[in-house]
Amino acid sequence: MSKDESNVLYPPSKIGIVGGGQLGKLMAFEAKKMGYHLTILDPTYNCPAGQVSDEQITASFADKDSIRKLAKETDVITFEFEHINADILKELEDEGYRVYPSGHTLKKIQNKYIQKKLLFDKGVKVPNLKKVNSKLDIINTFEDFGDELILKTCTGGYDGKGNIVIKNKAKLDEIIDELSDDSIKEHFFAEKLVDFEKELSIIASRDLMGNVSFYPIAENTHKDSILTLTVAPADISSLVEEKAINTAKEVMDILDDVGVFCIEMFLGKDHEIYVNEIAPRPHNSGHYTYEACITSQFEQLIRIITGMPLGSTNLLSPCAMTNILGTDEVIGQYSVKGMEDILKEKNAYIHLYGKFSTGKNKKIGHITVLDDNLKEASKKALEAINNLKIISIKKS
Amino acid sequence: MSKDESNVLYPPSKIGIVGGGQLGKLMAFEAKKMGYHLTILDPTYNCPAGQVSDEQITASFADKDSIRKLAKETDVITFEFEHINADILKELEDEGYRVYPSGHTLKKIQNKYIQKKLLFDKGVKVPNLKKVNSKLDIINTFEDFGDELILKTCTGGYDGKGNIVIKNKAKLDEIIDELSDDSIKEHFFAEKLVDFEKELSIIASRDLMGNVSFYPIAENTHKDSILTLTVAPADISSLVEEKAINTAKEVMDILDDVGVFCIEMFLGKDHEIYVNEIAPRPHNSGHYTYEACITSQFEQLIRIITGMPLGSTNLLSPCAMTNILGTDEVIGQYSVKGMEDILKEKNAYIHLYGKFSTGKNKKIGHITVLDDNLKEASKKALEAINNLKIISIKKS
Repeated sequence: MSKDESNVLYPPSKIGIVGGGQLGKLMAFEAKKMGYHLTILDPTYNCPAGQVSDEQITASFADKDSIRKLAKETDVITFEFEHINADILKELEDEGYRVYPSGHTLKKIQNKYIQKKLLFDKGVKVPNLKKVNSKLDIINTFEDFGDELILKTCTGGYDGKGNIVIKNKAKLDEIIDELSDDSIKEHFFAEKLVDFEKELSIIASRDLMGNVSFYPIAENTHKDSILTLTVAPADISSLVEEKAINTAKEVMDILDDVGVFCIEMFLGKDHEIYVNEIAPRPHNSGHYTYEACITSQFEQLIRIITGMPLGSTNLLSPCAMTNILGTDEVIGQYSVKGMEDILKEKNAYIHLYGKFSTGKNKKIGHITVLDDNLKEASKKALEAINNLKIISIKKS
Repeated sequence: MSKDESNVLYPPSKIGIVGGGQLGKLMAFEAKKMGYHLTILDPTYNCPAGQVSDEQITASFADKDSIRKLAKETDVITFEFEHINADILKELEDEGYRVYPSGHTLKKIQNKYIQKKLLFDKGVKVPNLKKVNSKLDIINTFEDFGDELILKTCTGGYDGKGNIVIKNKAKLDEIIDELSDDSIKEHFFAEKLVDFEKELSIIASRDLMGNVSFYPIAENTHKDSILTLTVAPADISSLVEEKAINTAKEVMDILDDVGVFCIEMFLGKDHEIYVNEIAPRPHNSGHYTYEACITSQFEQLIRIITGMPLGSTNLLSPCAMTNILGTDEVIGQYSVKGMEDILKEKNAYIHLYGKFSTGKNKKIGHITVLDDNLKEASKKALEAINNLKIISIKKS
């Protein structure tokens, strides 16, 4: 449905979400709580969000016709995943459909090199970066960046997929051998490794009236480029907090768009804040907001796209969140044993996404633990993961 | 599926819920959050809970075959509504299917006279009551109870449907004229009106291991026998709180069953606690737990029926809840305008159940407001309702 005069959408107005994984599922809970009709577009039939929504369009994220169908059948569309066809979103938007955040923003963000160059050009501190177009470029940049660098794909990477860390000459030679000049030119840029003290993230939101709000800063731990632990609020000084919030404000000004955005940052050992990456959607490091904040990042997005005002981002309790990741021991259909040992800890929550199959490092759920003592929360969350056992089950 | 040796059910085990209204919908959010497969049985196609569940069996609550089908296709069944066929639940249970709470308990509770007589016989204070079998019985009881009484239907009543308050001779004569001796005998019992200071309720739970927990006592206001306001925690003395909890413990001992139960009570002007009614399921007066408690009454029930331990019933914030009720001005398809004025209040939540049609006093949603100051919470919740306008919409 095309936009009419008002941007305020009352239930039973229809929302469309491109992407139906765990983020879409948590958005679905909030949209359905508020009485909206919900349609999910996802290539996997009966995907996590599809299981709790009114309708699913089973189609590829690249399928322009299906995304157009989603827009036509609903009153507003958003996305839970940025590796989708941004051109069709731009097109639909230009035709007057409600698309939040804008496809134009998505287009800029999808290419990580363009994303970061934009921030850099506008004066936001980012890790030193360089577009590399040949083997020689990589070799020279490796030297420039202090005999180390991280090679990143401009588009399509997530959860560290597409990141190659090069810390010595041997690895450099190996990569140079593997990649062609054409492939380098087409896909990669180089980034200087930041010697960081902490990894932080802020979930920021802007509503249709232009109001901006920020969730408490979260502190993240990654393993193999995959988020393993988030605690909130981050254990940082008020000076660092101020710097991080100011950086987030600068980013929101540059993006100049509505929606929920995650701004991932490094706190360098030099006490500076470097923006690492922006996601134009609710984010894994904001899962904690579902239980620990007055308004979750998911409800916040639903409020925004329906023209409602922002909810409170206040923390109800300090908390820790750990992802439940698949292992290489079990591939395919599975069950998760040992939940009862986690739920004995009275302030713990388990989310299992209802994905039909598991695999190595696949995000199949998460655990959130509330505790006034942040260290206790982390400890309990990490111990909780050890109580879980992913087991294979036969096809039923 | 029949019970096997273990009562612990891991996702993707299947849960069946008889009844798919707002209570079922909130149970669905929690069950799906935890990764279970969910099937709803409800006579209304695409009912509120059906919209957020994997499957729906569209059938009457009296339909034994369909309830049996639900049990066969799932690993455990529960219900959100007590006016269902209890005999089939008893049958299934006796055949080894997991049914929580027990159909045997439901059978006792369904008949309000039997329910209250049971409590009375076990020494729990209830309003004075008497089975009436004729017009003469009613006349005599009216006198015995101090020239007033409330006539209640033994089975089938809810939200005050089936309650007739008789406070004077004229009303008595009118009712005596209307009812036949046979109808009185078959349907009604009489209860003495309690001169109460407050209406309270406690949500109590018992898990499969026998552990019992109680949510904070809630204070309720009804209008035309329909709940209009719940605040938690109740504004009562610690002495009254102790009495109420002790009464709830007695009730849980008498019921001797697993599940979530709501115990509605009067705090009499004589400072005594009288049990008014027991519901063997999550309850409207426990809606507040969804946002304001660590574990909601809905997650608590899902934990219980899947053999998991109880979660914390601690309050994260004082709160108030008001029901959004249909009016006689709009019947049929509707939208709810003015949500943005409520959501401006940053600590407010709106639930709209996604019922397709509205009507007088139909529960179509609720609002929860968190506030450290309980009076402020109530004020905001009641004002919030005034901001909403239910409007008629054409069939799309």
